[in-house]
Amino acid sequence: MANQKSPVPSTAILSQDELDLIDKWWRAANYLSVGQIYLLDNPLLREALAKEHVKPRLLGHWGTTPGLNFIYAHLNRVIRHTDEQVLFIAGPGHGAPGVVASTWLEGTYSELYPEVSQDADGMRRLFRQFSFPGGIPSHAAPETPGSIHEGGELGYSLSHAFGAVFDNPDLIAACVVGDGEAETGPLATSWHGNKFLNPVCDGAVLPILHLNGYKIANPTVLARIPTEELKALFEGYGYAPILVEGEEPGAMHQAMARALDDAFSTIRNVQDKARGERVTKRPVWPMIILKTPKGWTGPKTVDGLKAEGYWRSHQVPFTMEKPEHLGLLEEWLRSYRPDELFNEAGQLKPEIAAMSPKGDRRMSANPHANGGALMRPLRLPDFKDYAVAVEGPGKADAESTRLVGRFLRDVLSANAEPRNFRLFGPDETASNRLQDVFEVTGRTWNAETFAYDDHLSPDGRVMEILSEHTCQGWLEGYLLTGRHGFFSCYEAFIHIVDSMFNQHAKWLKTSKEVAWRRPIASMNYLLTSHVWRQDHNGFSHQDPGFVDHVVNKKADIVRVYFPPDANTLLHVTDHCLRSWNRVNVIVAGKQPQPQWLTMDQAIKHCSKGIGIWEWASSDQDGEPDVVMACCGDIPTLETLAAVDLLREYAPDLKVRVINIVDLMTLQPKTEHPHGLSDIEFDELFTKDKPVIFAYHGYPWLIHRLAYKRTNHDNMHVRGFKEEGSTTTPFDMVVRNDLDRFHLAADVFDRVPRLSVSAAHVKQSIRDRLIEHRLYIRQHGIDMPEVRNWRWSSAK
Amino acid sequence: MANQKSPVPSTAILSQDELDLIDKWWRAANYLSVGQIYLLDNPLLREALAKEHVKPRLLGHWGTTPGLNFIYAHLNRVIRHTDEQVLFIAGPGHGAPGVVASTWLEGTYSELYPEVSQDADGMRRLFRQFSFPGGIPSHAAPETPGSIHEGGELGYSLSHAFGAVFDNPDLIAACVVGDGEAETGPLATSWHGNKFLNPVCDGAVLPILHLNGYKIANPTVLARIPTEELKALFEGYGYAPILVEGEEPGAMHQAMARALDDAFSTIRNVQDKARGERVTKRPVWPMIILKTPKGWTGPKTVDGLKAEGYWRSHQVPFTMEKPEHLGLLEEWLRSYRPDELFNEAGQLKPEIAAMSPKGDRRMSANPHANGGALMRPLRLPDFKDYAVAVEGPGKADAESTRLVGRFLRDVLSANAEPRNFRLFGPDETASNRLQDVFEVTGRTWNAETFAYDDHLSPDGRVMEILSEHTCQGWLEGYLLTGRHGFFSCYEAFIHIVDSMFNQHAKWLKTSKEVAWRRPIASMNYLLTSHVWRQDHNGFSHQDPGFVDHVVNKKADIVRVYFPPDANTLLHVTDHCLRSWNRVNVIVAGKQPQPQWLTMDQAIKHCSKGIGIWEWASSDQDGEPDVVMACCGDIPTLETLAAVDLLREYAPDLKVRVINIVDLMTLQPKTEHPHGLSDIEFDELFTKDKPVIFAYHGYPWLIHRLAYKRTNHDNMHVRGFKEEGSTTTPFDMVVRNDLDRFHLAADVFDRVPRLSVSAAHVKQSIRDRLIEHRLYIRQHGIDMPEVRNWRWSSAK
Repeated sequence: MANQKSPVPSTAILSQDELDLIDKWWRAANYLSVGQIYLLDNPLLREALAKEHVKPRLLGHWGTTPGLNFIYAHLNRVIRHTDEQVLFIAGPGHGAPGVVASTWLEGTYSELYPEVSQDADGMRRLFRQFSFPGGIPSHAAPETPGSIHEGGELGYSLSHAFGAVFDNPDLIAACVVGDGEAETGPLATSWHGNKFLNPVCDGAVLPILHLNGYKIANPTVLARIPTEELKALFEGYGYAPILVEGEEPGAMHQAMARALDDAFSTIRNVQDKARGERVTKRPVWPMIILKTPKGWTGPKTVDGLKAEGYWRSHQVPFTMEKPEHLGLLEEWLRSYRPDELFNEAGQLKPEIAAMSPKGDRRMSANPHANGGALMRPLRLPDFKDYAVAVEGPGKADAESTRLVGRFLRDVLSANAEPRNFRLFGPDETASNRLQDVFEVTGRTWNAETFAYDDHLSPDGRVMEILSEHTCQGWLEGYLLTGRHGFFSCYEAFIHIVDSMFNQHAKWLKTSKEVAWRRPIASMNYLLTSHVWRQDHNGFSHQDPGFVDHVVNKKADIVRVYFPPDANTLLHVTDHCLRSWNRVNVIVAGKQPQPQWLTMDQAIKHCSKGIGIWEWASSDQDGEPDVVMACCGDIPTLETLAAVDLLREYAPDLKVRVINIVDLMTLQPKTEHPHGLSDIEFDELFTKDKPVIFAYHGYPWLIHRLAYKRTNHDNMHVRGFKEEGSTTTPFDMVVRNDLDRFHLAADVFDRVPRLSVSAAHVKQSIRDRLIEHRLYIRQHGIDMPEVRNWRWSSAK
Repeated sequence: MANQKSPVPSTAILSQDELDLIDKWWRAANYLSVGQIYLLDNPLLREALAKEHVKPRLLGHWGTTPGLNFIYAHLNRVIRHTDEQVLFIAGPGHGAPGVVASTWLEGTYSELYPEVSQDADGMRRLFRQFSFPGGIPSHAAPETPGSIHEGGELGYSLSHAFGAVFDNPDLIAACVVGDGEAETGPLATSWHGNKFLNPVCDGAVLPILHLNGYKIANPTVLARIPTEELKALFEGYGYAPILVEGEEPGAMHQAMARALDDAFSTIRNVQDKARGERVTKRPVWPMIILKTPKGWTGPKTVDGLKAEGYWRSHQVPFTMEKPEHLGLLEEWLRSYRPDELFNEAGQLKPEIAAMSPKGDRRMSANPHANGGALMRPLRLPDFKDYAVAVEGPGKADAESTRLVGRFLRDVLSANAEPRNFRLFGPDETASNRLQDVFEVTGRTWNAETFAYDDHLSPDGRVMEILSEHTCQGWLEGYLLTGRHGFFSCYEAFIHIVDSMFNQHAKWLKTSKEVAWRRPIASMNYLLTSHVWRQDHNGFSHQDPGFVDHVVNKKADIVRVYFPPDANTLLHVTDHCLRSWNRVNVIVAGKQPQPQWLTMDQAIKHCSKGIGIWEWASSDQDGEPDVVMACCGDIPTLETLAAVDLLREYAPDLKVRVINIVDLMTLQPKTEHPHGLSDIEFDELFTKDKPVIFAYHGYPWLIHRLAYKRTNHDNMHVRGFKEEGSTTTPFDMVVRNDLDRFHLAADVFDRVPRLSVSAAHVKQSIRDRLIEHRLYIRQHGIDMPEVRNWRWSSAK
């Protein structure tokens, strides 16, 4: 069914010989793809196909595969001609049979997995292992050479591609976008990456929109609009689309070769011009729209129903339940004429193998796709130099994130030359008080500018677009190719990338199990503008649940930090920037707050991750009556203020204050590497004393982490219980019973020896709380008592 | 600063009088907006502005507001002229000062909130309450008349607009899309809604892209590309853009009036033609691109720095810390000349008030914006008629979702006339085995078609686009305007809409607290293609965490169901379709599975939500030795198979089998209305016997729900622990220790009286498990023993 020959047209750029060889390479890849989906044995069809040669369970996606193979074959040609360094991103990663086939044809696969050798026995293993238990997955997963993109969840190929080429001037990311994926929101906006690309210092992205017309069961939108609309759309996105459409292989080979020659020479011209003249003005980059039948070269019909060029080709075009399908399969496989492609030993014939580039120029061997191997640690200034001076607990005020901004400014400076660190955020870097970074760099921007613009630069290292998806995708692409980054985001809206986080965490987990994958830098989130300080933006901006989502992923991947003040935040940030193969979530506010720890104290506290704050405790000479635990900056503030109230209402009560920076210390050691042992936990939380736990997020997360602990039944957790609005900061904690008055009253509820005075004191506390609420309603601000409250060690 | 007069040009369509009145209406709205942001008192500036008239804390977004007011004023004009029914959707919902001001000017606000009357005292309250504790939020929240869209999280305005007009042929949704929001992924793809709109049976969406040029601190991408690209982009999306650009109010009034006249007459012509000729072919709908300065009519500069037309206008353009700002504020407020707008009593002058439409034609009084008031319950066939016959437990097989597909087919038929029910899903309706619905309807499709297309129709009621965001947004818009829907989705990828779910749940929670809001139909999710049956698609498709995310929201909003078989799924589906103001999550597989309950049993079981399966239990004559609890179809299967093994290995063991359909029964009654009382819980789970709990999702969720229960310490939960790949169904449960062998071995670990035989039996069980794993690795499929296993009551 493949390779219906047609005369070479006069406008041809491929000679008949080259066309034949490329077609053979493509047929070989297609043959290997069908083989992977269907065959257990008899890989070269040296005997008649029999039922026992076929897999008992057929899993895989054929529809997109021949198109991917076609693109791969032609990219190989243009790489050989231009010696460009190309990273292949298969948006339709479920076309892994094609991606894997191509990497095997290039030899990379056998280099990394020697048992899958380039011969008949290796081919048999190649076929057998695909989508097979103990074998390889059906997507372009971490196991796949040359891949940084699984494509299991759709929408992120193009932002990954842009992320990969930032600061990689010699790299071209050839990014295949499926027309299904093109319907997703994240993909639809990621075309705008071209407004953030610097032709001098960054590489290029060549998007190849593959319109094969169908998703699982539906046509695709972009395949069903007039060509004028399609072209206008991509011109509107700022590209020069090159349309390649058809199904006759000979003509399509010529057209694709021409399109890629055009695209690559345009890229080269654009870059040479920009680099020669040091002019960064946004060029119109090329893109290719490739329109081919879905399941191209597969069976035209199956059981009388349309298959090629239709959605029925999406996965396995036919099963083996009907006996006549065995013949159909054999006919299909033989249509690629394997004997013309492979020699007696099952090796690709040398003249066809010569169609692949050599060494690192093979896309499957592109070093950037194993970014960890290229990763250099960041040059980090000493975070201690950014410390806020704290003469005593509560004796200084600071905006925590502001200090981190200074630290990050100098991280940016120190790594300006290696160009391997960027900040990411949806238009919130300054709002999140990291604005000092703009002393040394600008916001990445290559769209139009005006004279009065503020810190916009094609060379800027702060990447802001109002799309959390795009920020996340760019950063993933940047990390996966061996660089470092830091993502600051409003806490509530980081949920927008929940699913992307899932996929990245899964990628990291699997990568660790792949011997040749080297560790990459961690994904670092700073969640600021958090639930307790979004009082001004209202309920839609109040959601601390990302942490709940994160802790479902593998313990050796995820870390969650709640630094209570600026010095602890500095330490945690430094720690995260030094780590690898993790997802680090840091939650810390941006508003001015009292500071608790000196830098020395902060280092000690963070190193343990959890600890007793002796200076706030009154149990030095024995067992406490109550443990006041706090995790998060605002819960820490309210807990200390509650301790203050307790000193007033119950002066001889023995209170132990525990602060938690590293949330995962609460989990058993058996479940998380940072978890405390039970002995350590019991020493801190006691075995039987009431624990009033003030937590930043949803309270039940603490129970989920600590339910196995001895004293769990005595743990009483306060946190966000989904009550919010536009109001004052203190009213936010009051609405959720997390305020100092509730916490103090909780103590009177739970400490037996206070029960005599409890009713009286609680009435007094309640009265004070009512007074606060009335004041807030009347004045629209918190009472001075709250606004000006400071910890005093004198009491 | 407003209303610099210019001569009426010859192409004018507004007379000078009309222009003046519209401008006055706009100035009034702007005045009220600034007043809401700044003023506590002295609303009409009848005395000189003093510091005590100004709010102590200034919260609000000015930047977008004058543009919203401008659009609102002009929509009012075209509504008065055309008598169209228009729903106003403010994508930049944080421009609530403007939206609220307009609704007050129209009188609706005072009708719904009589204390905020249309006079000086009401104006004072209007100002004071904005962004004030106990007042109203800073966004177009549920409290805002005429709003179905808060706009707190950006990206969903346009999909809400399309959702609102489906099956509302007489409705026009005028949807303002901010240029910040336009950068988000969900918004970028939602322009394609026009390919799913039927001009005969649906209403129209008029997108108004408001390019005010800036986000919080950055320019916007779409405001910084050449006009040709901008126009090409929207032509590519299939619209005819009408550009309105400028800042001189007189000229802008003329231009906007012309643009809206054009747009509305195009819509009318398109609809009249389509409806007259019954031709549904996709027309090119109009859209408006409105380019105005950010913070238009606000102070040009503040402290010498550019404010109007710049990002500094985004929120409050200046604070009151500098004394001279008081004068600046007064000058700004007086620039709108309030005495020309309001009479002595503080009422809008009648000739200006006459610029508003009347009654329901006021956008703030549009009945569709309080959709619950229009909602009619669905006509539901009797779900019992779709039951699968089950002669005894395990005596029938069925694909559960297939039966629901039949039920939904008839729900679609029964509600074909009221046209108030649609199915939504990202291209997965058939893949999720709901394909019987296509017997009575098609997939909604108004792009190009070919003769061989399969069930595509502009009239179809199954909405499929490969964008979970768009599906969710459409459905939200459809529900919020009083209709019903059902969303089926792959379990792993529903996380894509985590954040949208959050916002919808928050909207529902707040709506319940707004007296005039009527309940709307529930948001119903069917999560199928779930973690245990995505063995063929691999790790990226395996994620059961959406439920963890959902249960963080308010207990009276969320419900989670795990029907173990087809009859229970039918009951649950029927129940969810009858409910309102909820988010219902149903998790159920699509693969052929043994069936357990007859319809009568299913009804009883689901009505309680949890119960002992006596037929599977062996503790009828007393206390059990062990409780085997299961929640989810696959955990139920594995639990019953484990019970089978236990009958073999420990024939006299007393086993109690508990199945949970309604997950929230596990929570204490005090925390969730469906929660069991402690007495009920103890009766089921015992106070002290080991509980082996097989759960569909992440195991710790069960602990989080049940940690307060008496017997919690004895609960041993198995579930998904993030181990997956492309493999067999049974290998999936084995990798996560959720298989029958692990569950049986768990019993031997935990029942004291089995400890004598435990080592021996566990070795035997382990050996059998190894045998299974070897078989799977060798054959690529599960052993017949597993594939063919059936419950037998004979043992």
